[in-house]
Formats: sequence, C-alpha cells, structure tokens
Amino acid sequence: MLDQSGLEILSRDECLTLLATGRVGRIVFTAGGLPAVEPVKFVCERGALWFPAQTGTDLLGAAEDGVVAFEADEFDAGLSGGWWVTVLGRAVVAEGCDLPRRRPDLSWPEFAEDAQCVRLPIEVVSGRRVKR
Amino acid sequence: MLDQSGLEILSRDECLTLLATGRVGRIVFTAGGLPAVEPVKFVCERGALWFPAQTGTDLLGAAEDGVVAFEADEFDAGLSGGWWVTVLGRAVVAEGCDLPRRRPDLSWPEFAEDAQCVRLPIEVVSGRRVKR
Repeated sequence: MLDQSGLEILSRDECLTLLATGRVGRIVFTAGGLPAVEPVKFVCERGALWFPAQTGTDLLGAAEDGVVAFEADEFDAGLSGGWWVTVLGRAVVAEGCDLPRRRPDLSWPEFAEDAQCVRLPIEVVSGRRVKR
Repeated sequence: MLDQSGLEILSRDECLTLLATGRVGRIVFTAGGLPAVEPVKFVCERGALWFPAQTGTDLLGAAEDGVVAFEADEFDAGLSGGWWVTVLGRAVVAEGCDLPRRRPDLSWPEFAEDAQCVRLPIEVVSGRRVKR
C-alpha cells in the first residue's frame, strides 16, 4: 500500500524486523517548549527500544516526562532507496536495568559512568520504504 | 568545550560547514498533538535549509505551521565517532521556488510532481562531535 507521497507503507512486523537491525536512531522530545532531537545508540528487545541517557540531560528529562518519538532509517549511497521507521511511546527510566554495564558500547564516549537506562515501549510504530 | 555528556560542542560555523555536506536529515514537528519525525533530502543554501514536501502531507502542514526542528548526523561504521547538528527555525513554504524542478533528486520517488518547496531559516543551530 502506498501513502500520499507514493511511498510504500510498512506493516508493524516489517517495522519491528527493521528496528532489530538498527543501531542508531533519534529521540524526538520537547525541551523548554521547543522541539528537540538527539541521536542515541539503541537496542530493540522485548517489545521496546532501550538506550542510555545521562543523568541531568534534557534527554533523560524527556524520558521521565511522557510521550516521545523515535526514528531510525537507512538509505543507500545514492539516497534513491531505503527505509525509515518511527515509534511513538511513553518512555520510562528502567530502574535496575543492566544495559549500561552490559552494553557500554551503546554510550557515546565518556557517557557511560553516569548513564541510566531508558525503556521506550513500541506502542505506535509506522514505517516507509523508498524504492529506486 | 564539552557538554554534560562529555561531547564536544560545535560552534555555529562548524555546524554550518557540516550541514553543507549533509544530504539527508529529519524534520521534527507536531502532528495531531504528538511528536512526529520524517526524513527529507535537503540542501543548505543562503542561510537556510531547503527541502520538498508534497501537498496534503503532515510534513507540509508542519512547514506552514510554526517552529520545526531539523537534525542531520553522520557516524563512522562502528558508531564510535561522528557528529550531529540540529536546527530550530520557523519554516515557510517558499512560493515560486524552483528547487523541485532544479533538483528533482531531492524528492523521494513519485514525489516530485506535486512537491512544494519548504525553506527553514537556520535560526538556532547546535551540534556535537563524538570522538573515538
């Protein structure tokens, strides 16, 4: 099925399969009343996206504060083909999560020491595929 | 200078230089009261980002409706180094803009016919560099 722009609409299953291959995405939130966006390295496990956020950052504040969006994408070198998936969900700080220790590579440099683990349940998911 | 997460804060000039090398970014807006995000191919010219948006889409609606954010990034294969830049500005539909005709490659497939040109002035810009 195609959307208004002629792009292929991906099913929920297709989106989840693509998310499982993703390694970096962007968290979209509101900071000081304005739209904000920040890249994160993430894993997709147990019906949720998981990523670290450091104490005191806007990103962690957003994760404690309600609905956030997430986007991951991948395009070929010529940008004529590719896909993107967006997720909408209510993020929570996952207390006792061992992700920062288990996967220190998910933190950007110098980030790990004070990182908390955020869990974003995959509530609403949508995606598009661009074909050559 | 480093931010709270230990990431290097980029100057405005560094951000603009990186944006000039970018080809794909993500527009962050609000649709139906919820955060939304959509990738676009863009050019950075004359102090603004320019991208096509098709008539009738949420993306074009957002561009007619106020402040939007934009993000572009690039990471090395191991995700241990890279950069991202975010822009905040008041988008407008640029009437009479020849971009959709001049650069049809900026549209995703089947997108070009009905595309309008959106101009996002680079008002607030910020960026980070991640070093190995």
